[in-house]
Amino acid sequence: MVVFSGTTDRLMPVGVLASGAVAMGMDVDIFLTFWGLQAFSKRAQGAPPKFSADYSDMAPMFGQVMKEKNVPSVFETLKQAKDLGNVKIFACTMTMDLLGQTKEDFIDLVDATAGVGEFMDRAKDASSTLFI
Amino acid sequence: MVVFSGTTDRLMPVGVLASGAVAMGMDVDIFLTFWGLQAFSKRAQGAPPKFSADYSDMAPMFGQVMKEKNVPSVFETLKQAKDLGNVKIFACTMTMDLLGQTKEDFIDLVDATAGVGEFMDRAKDASSTLFI
Amino acid sequence: MVVFSGTTDRLMPVGVLASGAVAMGMDVDIFLTFWGLQAFSKRAQGAPPKFSADYSDMAPMFGQVMKEKNVPSVFETLKQAKDLGNVKIFACTMTMDLLGQTKEDFIDLVDATAGVGEFMDRAKDASSTLFI
Repeated sequence: MVVFSGTTDRLMPVGVLASGAVAMGMDVDIFLTFWGLQAFSKRAQGAPPKFSADYSDMAPMFGQVMKEKNVPSVFETLKQAKDLGNVKIFACTMTMDLLGQTKEDFIDLVDATAGVGEFMDRAKDASSTLFI
Repeated sequence: MVVFSGTTDRLMPVGVLASGAVAMGMDVDIFLTFWGLQAFSKRAQGAPPKFSADYSDMAPMFGQVMKEKNVPSVFETLKQAKDLGNVKIFACTMTMDLLGQTKEDFIDLVDATAGVGEFMDRAKDASSTLFI
Repeated sequence: MVVFSGTTDRLMPVGVLASGAVAMGMDVDIFLTFWGLQAFSKRAQGAPPKFSADYSDMAPMFGQVMKEKNVPSVFETLKQAKDLGNVKIFACTMTMDLLGQTKEDFIDLVDATAGVGEFMDRAKDASSTLFI
C-alpha cells in the first residue's frame, strides 16, 4: 500500500486492510508518503480525528459513532497487525528530505525509511498494490 | 475495486471501469466501504450531485455538462454493467456495524455483505485492484 | 496508473512513481481522466500550485518548501521519465467528449487519446495498477 492520504477516515482502511491481510497469512508493505507520512509523525499524535472535507455533512456523525464504539485508531490497528504477522512500514525518504525530517520524527510503528526505488522493487511482486 | 469515496465525480469511474471490464469479458468485484457505501444507501438516492471540494472551481461546469448530456449516474452504469457481465457489489460489514445498518438500508444493486477477509480472499487473485 | 486527481500534491507521486519505475526498467502507462486530465490542458499550465483541501493546515508550508527547494513539477518529472524509459501518457476520450476537448487542448506530454477499453486492455497485464 502507498499511503498518501492523512485524514482519519482514509487511514482507517489502511489498518483494516493490513489486519485482514495478515489474518490471511499475507505479507504487507506500507509506504507512507506526503500527508500519510505526516500523520505518523510524533508531533501529530493525539490530534483530534480529521475527516475528508468532502464529507463534512456525515463526518460529525461518524466521529461520534467511532468515539462511542471505541473504534481503534489506525495506529492501534497496525500495532495489532504487526503482532499477528508480517507488516513492514516505510517512511518515504523524499518527503522526509523535503521537510528536513529524520526517522526520529516518527513513531516507532515506522520500521525504516525507503526511497521510491526500494518501494517499487517490493511492489512489483505484490499480488495487489493500492494507492490510498 | 475498493470504493471508499462517495462523491459524484469519484463514483463516475467506478461505473465506467466496471462497464469497460465486463465489455472485455472480465469479472468485477466492487467492495463498498465508508463514504462509498453510504452513497448506495436508499436514503442517499435522488440527492443532487456532489463534487470533490478540491475542484470547486471546475465542478459547476462539469455538473452542467453532465446534466445537459444526460450522463448516466454510477447506479445506471453499474446496472447496465451487471446486465452485460459478472459484476458483484458487496457492502462492507464493518461500516454497517459501525452505523447500525442492515442490507435493507441499501439499494438492490448491492448483492451481498462482506467482511474484509472475504474481500481480501477475492482480491488476491484479481489482475488488478484499485482503491477509489 | 489511472490519474483522476488534479491537485499539485496528488500529481507529485505520479511523476515520482513513473521516474522510479523507468529507473527499474519497467514500462509505465498513465491514463489521465477527469480532474487529472484537466491539469494537463494547455490552459492549466502556469497556474499556481493547488493542494488538497483536506490538508490546508500543512499545505502552505509544503508549498513554500517545494518552491525553496525548486522541486520539479509533475510535468518536468514526467518529461525526464520519458527521456529515460518507456512512459506512455493517454487522455481519456470520455472526459474529452464530455467537455468538447480535442488532443490539441493538451500539452505535448500527452501521447495519445484512449478509451476505457484500450486502457483496460493495457492494464490487465500490468504488475500493478494504481488509482490516484
